[in-house]
Amino acid sequence: MATSGIGKRRALAQKDKTNTAYIERRHEIVQAAGRVFKDKGYRGTSLADIAESLGTDRANLYYYVASKEDLFSAVVSGAIGSNLATAESIKDGDGTAVEKLRAIITSLMLSYEEHYPVLYVYIQENSTHVGASSSEWEAKMAKINKRYEKILVSLVQEGYDDGSLRQVGPAWVVAFALLGMLGWTNRWFDPKKSEASAAQVGATFAELVMAGLAEGD
Amino acid sequence: MATSGIGKRRALAQKDKTNTAYIERRHEIVQAAGRVFKDKGYRGTSLADIAESLGTDRANLYYYVASKEDLFSAVVSGAIGSNLATAESIKDGDGTAVEKLRAIITSLMLSYEEHYPVLYVYIQENSTHVGASSSEWEAKMAKINKRYEKILVSLVQEGYDDGSLRQVGPAWVVAFALLGMLGWTNRWFDPKKSEASAAQVGATFAELVMAGLAEGD
Repeated sequence: MATSGIGKRRALAQKDKTNTAYIERRHEIVQAAGRVFKDKGYRGTSLADIAESLGTDRANLYYYVASKEDLFSAVVSGAIGSNLATAESIKDGDGTAVEKLRAIITSLMLSYEEHYPVLYVYIQENSTHVGASSSEWEAKMAKINKRYEKILVSLVQEGYDDGSLRQVGPAWVVAFALLGMLGWTNRWFDPKKSEASAAQVGATFAELVMAGLAEGD
Repeated sequence: MATSGIGKRRALAQKDKTNTAYIERRHEIVQAAGRVFKDKGYRGTSLADIAESLGTDRANLYYYVASKEDLFSAVVSGAIGSNLATAESIKDGDGTAVEKLRAIITSLMLSYEEHYPVLYVYIQENSTHVGASSSEWEAKMAKINKRYEKILVSLVQEGYDDGSLRQVGPAWVVAFALLGMLGWTNRWFDPKKSEASAAQVGATFAELVMAGLAEGD
């Protein structure tokens, strides 16, 4: 079968880290896939749609990607990696713990919108914490998520230590509360339909957890 | 097949609202199922385990319940109905919006623990918001969840209106933030393993969103 031949050629091409033309083309395809997932939703997208958006055909794509799922993984990896890089640079940058936590909250919410619906589909697929990471890719993602969590925990802890944050409870519970309010948006936030934009949602979350609801507390 | 005969007898018995002995026995079985789910986890539980915990056998249970899934639905209905009743009585009771929201947050967290893992399994099964409620039961649960949400939204709005709550953003976004931090605990809170009890987690969440993290804001 041709598919097996193309699979071997693809595997070889992906191993060759010096083949920049191949790497760039695959990157273009992943970017295009992100845009088509955003337009048509994940389920509504076929590999043929992605090929069409690039002015090529499905057969041509198979040299670069194995399947829609393969592209989905690549888009998720890119988005999650970029979220981690953002959080790391916020953590290492200037500002108080309050400012940094606000920046992480709002940027994660904007990232959900930018990559909609890909990160939400990932959250949904990855919905049980059982996660005996069945694939290498899942294990890699789990590692990135863990690092993201740790950044939040350490920012809260830093604020506790320098007195800039009120000690409302264990730092890790606070970090999970923030991740929870953000991650849960997968169940209700749709950039095309929501009455509040991602920027407004992020700002509301940040203000809620920083200033608190109780007036004059 | 015998199953079909027992299925008919069960359907008839369940229609008869005057058969209190039957209703009471079914209630006992549902309670026992809740306890066994808690001990063994949902996946680790069989109908035979539930029968054993009642000193009876599986064949005997079939007159009262169709399957483990049937019992799971009954346990979830009971827990969700009781959560709604709790929230309604808090809303209609005495106290400020701040006190009421605190009470709802802590009681929901305690309910996750009390009904562990049943409510979490329900949250996980029900993980996409697509929810074109495929069954009558799911539609009923969705209705109860909607009412629960509305109670939170209206409490936040009341606090906004009477000036007891700081206006951090749209009331519904705040309500979804609270439900998000609570619901997301399905991914990490295990009463047997957690370093923080449900009471501590609930108190942390409540303090976080009421007092806020920023010191001296």
